[in-house]
Amino acid sequence: MESCLTSAVHRFLEQSVFSSAVFLAERLVAENSSESNVGLLAQAYYRSGDGHRAISLLQNGVHSPSNKYLLALCCYEAGRLAEAESALIQTKYDGKNHGNEVEDVPNGAAGLYLMGCICRRAGRIEHAIQYFTASLKEDPFLWSAYEGLCELGCEVPPEEFFGHSAREAINMQTLAKAKMQESNSKSKVELPRKTTPAKGKKAMSRTYTEKDRPTKLRQTTIHQELEETKTPSKPQYSSTCSSEQLVLKLLHDYGSAFQALSLFRCETALQLFKNLPQKQRNSGWVLHQIGRTYFEMANYTKAARIYQTIRENEPHRMSGMAVYSTILYHLKQEVNLSYLAQQVTDFDKRSSEAWFVAGNCFSLQKEHDTALTFFQRAIQLDPCFTYAYTLCGHEYAANEDFEKAIGCYRHAIRMDPRHYNAWYGMGTIYFRQEKFELAEYHFRKAIAINPQSSILYCNLGMVLHAVERNNEAIAALEHAQRLQPLNPTARFHKAKVLVAQGRYEEAHQELEFVQNAAPKESSVHFLLGKVAKKLGRIDDAMRYFNNALFFHPKDNHLIKAAIERLHEEDRDENEESLVA
Amino acid sequence: MESCLTSAVHRFLEQSVFSSAVFLAERLVAENSSESNVGLLAQAYYRSGDGHRAISLLQNGVHSPSNKYLLALCCYEAGRLAEAESALIQTKYDGKNHGNEVEDVPNGAAGLYLMGCICRRAGRIEHAIQYFTASLKEDPFLWSAYEGLCELGCEVPPEEFFGHSAREAINMQTLAKAKMQESNSKSKVELPRKTTPAKGKKAMSRTYTEKDRPTKLRQTTIHQELEETKTPSKPQYSSTCSSEQLVLKLLHDYGSAFQALSLFRCETALQLFKNLPQKQRNSGWVLHQIGRTYFEMANYTKAARIYQTIRENEPHRMSGMAVYSTILYHLKQEVNLSYLAQQVTDFDKRSSEAWFVAGNCFSLQKEHDTALTFFQRAIQLDPCFTYAYTLCGHEYAANEDFEKAIGCYRHAIRMDPRHYNAWYGMGTIYFRQEKFELAEYHFRKAIAINPQSSILYCNLGMVLHAVERNNEAIAALEHAQRLQPLNPTARFHKAKVLVAQGRYEEAHQELEFVQNAAPKESSVHFLLGKVAKKLGRIDDAMRYFNNALFFHPKDNHLIKAAIERLHEEDRDENEESLVA
Repeated sequence: MESCLTSAVHRFLEQSVFSSAVFLAERLVAENSSESNVGLLAQAYYRSGDGHRAISLLQNGVHSPSNKYLLALCCYEAGRLAEAESALIQTKYDGKNHGNEVEDVPNGAAGLYLMGCICRRAGRIEHAIQYFTASLKEDPFLWSAYEGLCELGCEVPPEEFFGHSAREAINMQTLAKAKMQESNSKSKVELPRKTTPAKGKKAMSRTYTEKDRPTKLRQTTIHQELEETKTPSKPQYSSTCSSEQLVLKLLHDYGSAFQALSLFRCETALQLFKNLPQKQRNSGWVLHQIGRTYFEMANYTKAARIYQTIRENEPHRMSGMAVYSTILYHLKQEVNLSYLAQQVTDFDKRSSEAWFVAGNCFSLQKEHDTALTFFQRAIQLDPCFTYAYTLCGHEYAANEDFEKAIGCYRHAIRMDPRHYNAWYGMGTIYFRQEKFELAEYHFRKAIAINPQSSILYCNLGMVLHAVERNNEAIAALEHAQRLQPLNPTARFHKAKVLVAQGRYEEAHQELEFVQNAAPKESSVHFLLGKVAKKLGRIDDAMRYFNNALFFHPKDNHLIKAAIERLHEEDRDENEESLVA
Repeated sequence: MESCLTSAVHRFLEQSVFSSAVFLAERLVAENSSESNVGLLAQAYYRSGDGHRAISLLQNGVHSPSNKYLLALCCYEAGRLAEAESALIQTKYDGKNHGNEVEDVPNGAAGLYLMGCICRRAGRIEHAIQYFTASLKEDPFLWSAYEGLCELGCEVPPEEFFGHSAREAINMQTLAKAKMQESNSKSKVELPRKTTPAKGKKAMSRTYTEKDRPTKLRQTTIHQELEETKTPSKPQYSSTCSSEQLVLKLLHDYGSAFQALSLFRCETALQLFKNLPQKQRNSGWVLHQIGRTYFEMANYTKAARIYQTIRENEPHRMSGMAVYSTILYHLKQEVNLSYLAQQVTDFDKRSSEAWFVAGNCFSLQKEHDTALTFFQRAIQLDPCFTYAYTLCGHEYAANEDFEKAIGCYRHAIRMDPRHYNAWYGMGTIYFRQEKFELAEYHFRKAIAINPQSSILYCNLGMVLHAVERNNEAIAALEHAQRLQPLNPTARFHKAKVLVAQGRYEEAHQELEFVQNAAPKESSVHFLLGKVAKKLGRIDDAMRYFNNALFFHPKDNHLIKAAIERLHEEDRDENEESLVA
């Protein structure tokens, strides 16, 4: 009777007929409340979206690894982190070996990964890294663990996980699975298809020797292999290259690229993503990452083009839309952003990214309160949406509610200490409040995370200039300029520092560059005028001031005053305020 | 490569590591977007809670039965009924056989069940019954289909599905499954454990011959068998009784009981539920049904006791709490109801039943607007929560907003034409509006669904009395009395009719009964006084009027007036208003 009920429950779970699965599983448990039957019922509750019930059922005491895992999973999804953790590692307190915690986590790679997620959400980064690493060592296909590691800023090379040692891990894992299957006969193990083609393959020497070659070269070989295995005319390759090995190579390439992006090595990331096999490169996930890379490089036009392709190929893909909307915001493309917001919120009202897009849309239209509402709705739908907290902070900052803005940024940083945008946000607020030391501290924090960002160095330079550490300021601004040679902002600020230092000729040179790049920028003409006057070129100064007036018809009393005093000597005490 | 990715995706789905399953499935589809790979990716989207994406992916055209089923399932869960239906039966338009629709539905019993659900929600009751029946014929373990049939008022005896023909169905199903497995190699089929013990069993003759015995007797035999198969000392039974046969017997017993309750044959249902094997009888689901049965019998005290047991055994069980709260409402147990509302809303904020309980709690405290808010929240969480619509109607009625109340009742009836409570609600409103014909129509509708309800007959009697069809009224009230001999309401209303007919002695007799059952009811004493006066027993009348005054210290001008006019002759034209 039990066997018949059990198989029926499995059948209905398989077919997602949850009501029948739950009913029959309840009958099964009424017949015999064995641990495995209770586990099956809990699984049915969980699958039917009733995690709370699964917790209640399981928390009376479970012993099998799969039940402990399920309990922990349900607790984690319900946000009950402490319970989730104790469900997984309770063995430590009643078990025999008090050694490495990692060894005590039940349910193999999935259990370790879950522990990693729990630690990450609880802010215990070191533990999270430890568990994610252990999880990947046990099952190198568990990509999310590697993603987690990258997002936490881990720099372990992907060879560590997807290289030659992974092969051994797979064997170990097969063994462990088999053992688990014995102890928990209810869990279905799906290995046959995977292990069968791998059997009898010993010719792994190719990969072993390849390990020391430079990355670029090895990758080419990998892709050659990938291509070659598809061609039936070259059987010697397809027979030496097992299915797993091919997947591991693919994961290795994905991993290298994703890690580079996570460490904000954008040029490298771009190259690695573009080196992926053609088929993979055009998939939504890869395009999203390439788009994100351009975004981090502040190359918004290219980034927008990539996301537009994603919209065309996969209109149902929500992940990435948050970034896309921020790109459209930076490009000030109101119409496109409105259209996107309309589309994604129509598509799925329960998607946090959709409401994030709507928030960006209203922010661009300077409707900051509405924008706040939408960002907060995004957070309600996904309480771990770090970026939404940061943009809430930006909105509060726009409303000059600095206290609330800082609260939001702090929240974002608590959730993800590597979210440099929040550190940047705090820096800008302290800068506006003239708390320059704090501003410097936060900009330097952001730079430590993303050392390739021109805008961060630019801001740091402005802070250093404000506290009159002008040489350091110039160094920072020059670094910013190197990182993004086409963006004139760094040069402009450098010119300001040079003016403050009395280095008018150099300032003039810089400003000439800036003027060519941004010919309609009133402040550039104004500063040029100031510099020309200092250099005694009064006619030039007049021309510059007039240009400044032309491009800035409103709020022009400063310019007019400068024109009026064109033939007077500059008073030094007034200097700073004019330049600032 | 594909086989390896496929097995990894299955593994991570099995372990609920959805992020990795989705990532790898996307890689798989990027490699080769075959129908089965796309199906696996859609499955991963669906399992990770992203049904919308699964729809987008699949709606570009799917052919395999499992993919059609998944598409239909996702559409159904998203409330897109028409799309769900066309996903399942699109074969009809491009296929060869235009015969029976049932034959065209893909994915076997689960597909048919889903079609049944779609038709049911679309209000096409006949089609729903047809599909549920076909589904059960194919897989008699698909209990939800039987539940659906019962809830739709179907009277097909459970023998039809769980009797001797089910054995054949199982064989057919095994065959069909095997066929499906061929056509769709990705779907996991879990039959071995079920089919193995059944093989080589032909001694089904016991069940065949038993079929004509009376129910009671057959059930005892079934339970004997159930017990005996557990005892290893009687091997001849356990060998003749296969695992499936035992489960089918159990489902048969469950089915009989549930059907009886669905048809409001409460006494029978109670007996059948109590006849279930001890272990099963104490399970939460059975206790809930027994509690519901007592509730339908208006035996609220016993019902409350049953639900109290459920709360103690399974505090996490939400289903049934709606009924329980209505019971506590009828018992006016404010404290218990408040406590329950607190507990269940704390336990799961996203449970529709929890907010239903809260609604009942506030309704009992006459805070009808708050109650409405909570009932509406329950509806928001579960748009198919018929009972919540009805109680919304009751709240609007309490606020005398009859139009909105009728809207709610209509909505409830549209969703479930067998929800007699909504028909009753409409009847009471028309009665209050003195639209007696409409009131009669709706009460009769309710009675047709639940002919065992005393309160419905009672209301019908009142309506008939109001239109002076007094003999019919008395018949209805006497029927109500027979259905629930201990409830004095029917007798009281009968007495009123008798008074109207001038049958004072009979009325007096009835009222004496009522007075004994409800000695503190002012209106009974008042009517007794009226009758005594008619019979010329002025002293008795005075005593009754004084009692009426004693138990109804407020709003007593009617009684005082009666006392003052005790020695005057009754004016006939005033008669009705005094009695009413």
